[in-house]
Amino acid sequence: VNSDPIVTLVRQVQARDARAIARAITLVEDHDPRAGQLLAALDPQPIDGMTVIGITGPPGAGKSTLTGQLISRFRGEGQRVGIIAIDPSSPISGGAILGDRVRMMEHALDGDVIVRSMATRGRLGGLCAAAGAAMRIMANGGCSVVLIETVGVGQSEMDIVSLADLTLLVLAPGLGDEIQAMKAGLLEVADLLVVNKSDCPGAETLTLEMEAVTRDRSLVCRTDALTGFGVAELTDRLLALDREHRDDGTRSKRRGQAHEREVIDWAIELLRPWLSVAAKELDCGRADDPRQLAGELLAGLGLAGKVE
Amino acid sequence: VNSDPIVTLVRQVQARDARAIARAITLVEDHDPRAGQLLAALDPQPIDGMTVIGITGPPGAGKSTLTGQLISRFRGEGQRVGIIAIDPSSPISGGAILGDRVRMMEHALDGDVIVRSMATRGRLGGLCAAAGAAMRIMANGGCSVVLIETVGVGQSEMDIVSLADLTLLVLAPGLGDEIQAMKAGLLEVADLLVVNKSDCPGAETLTLEMEAVTRDRSLVCRTDALTGFGVAELTDRLLALDREHRDDGTRSKRRGQAHEREVIDWAIELLRPWLSVAAKELDCGRADDPRQLAGELLAGLGLAGKVE
Repeated sequence: VNSDPIVTLVRQVQARDARAIARAITLVEDHDPRAGQLLAALDPQPIDGMTVIGITGPPGAGKSTLTGQLISRFRGEGQRVGIIAIDPSSPISGGAILGDRVRMMEHALDGDVIVRSMATRGRLGGLCAAAGAAMRIMANGGCSVVLIETVGVGQSEMDIVSLADLTLLVLAPGLGDEIQAMKAGLLEVADLLVVNKSDCPGAETLTLEMEAVTRDRSLVCRTDALTGFGVAELTDRLLALDREHRDDGTRSKRRGQAHEREVIDWAIELLRPWLSVAAKELDCGRADDPRQLAGELLAGLGLAGKVE
Repeated sequence: VNSDPIVTLVRQVQARDARAIARAITLVEDHDPRAGQLLAALDPQPIDGMTVIGITGPPGAGKSTLTGQLISRFRGEGQRVGIIAIDPSSPISGGAILGDRVRMMEHALDGDVIVRSMATRGRLGGLCAAAGAAMRIMANGGCSVVLIETVGVGQSEMDIVSLADLTLLVLAPGLGDEIQAMKAGLLEVADLLVVNKSDCPGAETLTLEMEAVTRDRSLVCRTDALTGFGVAELTDRLLALDREHRDDGTRSKRRGQAHEREVIDWAIELLRPWLSVAAKELDCGRADDPRQLAGELLAGLGLAGKVE
């Protein structure tokens, strides 16, 4: 009888126990010393078959409602669905958004919908590493689809979207100039553009604009997530694109890049506590050049020649 | 005669040459091999006297217009003002937001307003290090005030706000639920709350709500940045708070923490190219546990015992 708690936890995850999945992700997020053991004990196979869909876009575009609709579609096919919601609110005062999301989704009581909220604040980086680990744990827990929902602003959020096999950019008419300007950056990471709230004024113009930008009408979908209009067509295009990317090597290439990014992010996460202690110990005035001090700090690690 | 181009550039910066300031910041942002020499050659004194003001808030709250008003106030006192605008759009397709900002500011032709846009994408992290360096360069270039404007979402943006001596959180009525929920996280980093668009419906309610949250009415200011209403009072409170923080040690404590963060961020920036090469050289399958591979990668650096 092996009574190692981590071995037991991994077995529970693989028996599709939703609480064990949550506990395993928390353990990694909290930098528990046993996190390495847990991740190494996971079966590497399940993630190969899983599809990871990134859903990004400005606040107010209706991402959560659309996510809820996509969950319904995948659940209708009997798939177990994981959701990683990158929550821009604080872990301290936060939780409001996740609450809203769960309510909106109406999947809160479905045991085959595994929702995980991750905060972008309150931790020093490592969001990409933590989200990647959550994907692996969810895959071991029987999820065949994972949806990563994030407000598409900022470096760390973009890094997370890059973990996805396919990315939806959700836009809506009438969100104001500053918000719409963000789509410039977001367009580069999107596989499909969704013009949501398709019955609102301005939806037609936004659709034409997006079709002009992509130069391919088949990459622009119109939906109304509240009523479900257009969601079936969107799902079909999404799955067709997934098959295409599996066949032409795009998926495999993206996964390779994402894997490399995860390795680098983990290396930084593992180094960070040491760097933090070393930075505190540096005998320096506030006015001293931080770059030079960083060089001295790395020299103390015996790395000076390698890194500069 | 010293003809070292970096020595010359630093001299030009210290002669308040706006183009030299821009060139120096670009050199650091581009990871030029001479970046270390340049930063080490800066005079460490000027940043001591400079005041750094962070301006954050959700998209559409009117941050750029308010920034323009604050610039006018500080320019009216004869101060040279630096602006670091963290641009959520891409460096590739972007520029639109900066263009808007400059137009809105109506300070584009004022040689004593130094505007610098920094992208949150297209570079692997290091935004905090780059923004810190830009502050030091602007201080050497004669700026006595630096305004850092950022959309208050995401880890890297929050890290940047933490470089500021004082932070304004700009809110506005009618921005929708998801956007308003963000303020929960933002409230923790704010020194003053600004309810902008104070003549719009809902401004009164939002002000009362914010006064209830902060439990201190003096920390909530109402402005209408378009007309300038409330901006004089806001500036007065800001300067009073700055004096208070200088006297009670808050400023000095924050600067110490920010300096530590900059050192760590620089250390990661210096390590990143090495990690990236090492990650590419790892002989691994995509399914392998990235955390374990990261450990092996650090072991190759001779760090395994130190960091795990």
